[in-house]
Amino acid sequence: MSSIDDPNFADLSDRLKLDNVRQSLIRQEDSIIFALIERSQYKVNDKIYKTNSIDVPCYDAKTGVRSSMIEFMLREREQMDGKIRRYTSPDEHAFYPESLPPLVIPPMNFGEVLHECALKININDRIKEMYVENIVPGMCESGDDNNYGSAGLCDVNCLQLISRRIHYGKFVAEAKFRAQPDEYSDLIRKQDGNGLMQLLTNQAVEDRVVARVTNKAAFYGQDINEEVPDASKVLTNPENQKYKVAPEIIADLYFKWIMPMTKDVQVEYLLQRLD
Amino acid sequence: MSSIDDPNFADLSDRLKLDNVRQSLIRQEDSIIFALIERSQYKVNDKIYKTNSIDVPCYDAKTGVRSSMIEFMLREREQMDGKIRRYTSPDEHAFYPESLPPLVIPPMNFGEVLHECALKININDRIKEMYVENIVPGMCESGDDNNYGSAGLCDVNCLQLISRRIHYGKFVAEAKFRAQPDEYSDLIRKQDGNGLMQLLTNQAVEDRVVARVTNKAAFYGQDINEEVPDASKVLTNPENQKYKVAPEIIADLYFKWIMPMTKDVQVEYLLQRLD
Repeated sequence: MSSIDDPNFADLSDRLKLDNVRQSLIRQEDSIIFALIERSQYKVNDKIYKTNSIDVPCYDAKTGVRSSMIEFMLREREQMDGKIRRYTSPDEHAFYPESLPPLVIPPMNFGEVLHECALKININDRIKEMYVENIVPGMCESGDDNNYGSAGLCDVNCLQLISRRIHYGKFVAEAKFRAQPDEYSDLIRKQDGNGLMQLLTNQAVEDRVVARVTNKAAFYGQDINEEVPDASKVLTNPENQKYKVAPEIIADLYFKWIMPMTKDVQVEYLLQRLD
Repeated sequence: MSSIDDPNFADLSDRLKLDNVRQSLIRQEDSIIFALIERSQYKVNDKIYKTNSIDVPCYDAKTGVRSSMIEFMLREREQMDGKIRRYTSPDEHAFYPESLPPLVIPPMNFGEVLHECALKININDRIKEMYVENIVPGMCESGDDNNYGSAGLCDVNCLQLISRRIHYGKFVAEAKFRAQPDEYSDLIRKQDGNGLMQLLTNQAVEDRVVARVTNKAAFYGQDINEEVPDASKVLTNPENQKYKVAPEIIADLYFKWIMPMTKDVQVEYLLQRLD
């Protein structure tokens, strides 16, 4: 019933086409920023992230130590999402890829856009650590409100979205490589990671991303009422505006932690692009 | 280890306090509107909602007919969320309450805000039907893009949020009852559902909700870039503005389908409030 050539199993959206990389990145930003604001409703609740802290039925296979609640929740979610082929999509990466369940619906045909080295790159361990150490305490009120389930569900959503955005660096890198194949090939042959990082960095573009993320956080994070809103005030007169999270905090976390990791993925992909 | 009086197991947020009903409803609107816009990225994909249409491992217990993909996904999600005590919270209602798993973390103490009749009210079957028949085709492009997994994940999120909002009518009704106990008690004793519906309806408030939802859909649904935005344009000059979904469509769906159901829950709760 399933066939790779059958149009019934082709991704008919334009989501993963290289021409649409920029558009996809911008759309993913929307989701991430909104998800971060949702998480910030709850306190840090750091018990969620500690092993042997909440009595979840999940243990480290080697040490036998009880896992953290966030690990339990991510594993459970991946059992569910994995069945419906989430991790067959080249822009999705499991946090526990060794434990994925069998598919219950046939895989989809996404076409082959990336070099096969893409399959070897998964930095979710680093992403999880970064999220727990920096993003959550950076935007949530410290302390504990006991809403571990609600906060944890927000965490799973944030982590899945941030992971997708960061690993989307593979598509970004492929598009950049195709635009300047000679320059990139030269550096790849020399295995010059610093040179690649320099070539793929565009400071003007990064500044625009930060400005855009700030605007989005201001738009999504303000309390919108039934009056006709005046958004110019939102940004020019911020001290009079109440936000769920200060837009600069979201933009700063995005700039400091999420953006550099997308570039790390790009470099890692490019270094193997000619293998 | 678990105890109902132990502060470690009390909900320390203000989420479910009656004083905060209005604030909570407004906050829930934000989540719903954003979730609807996320769903609208994908086409209707109506195979997701039909029985015997996608090969999910889930069958109707009585007829043996293969369930729809959305039923499979909701059931799977509730297996996960149920373990971490989602459905012990008085504002959460399972779509398949007969199939909930045992808890893996101790239940939380939410205090007793509602009359015990609240436990008997669950209109999720109607909500699911309304969502599939009206909301999805009302805002998504018709047809099929094969993104059943991605669209279905958005559906689960929308359904859970809309269900919470509609069943929050129990808290709304309790707050209204406490504000006017004599008027409500009189109608309740007569079991006058129409009278209750009239007493709890405030047209001016409903108009404000529609205006607020329109504004939120305009703010969340526009494409925000790196320029300083001018939101006055967003609403006064809508033909020059590109939205993910037209704000009026979202507001209209909210008004026509979601708001009446929250009032149905209020009436149902009030009718049993003196039992």
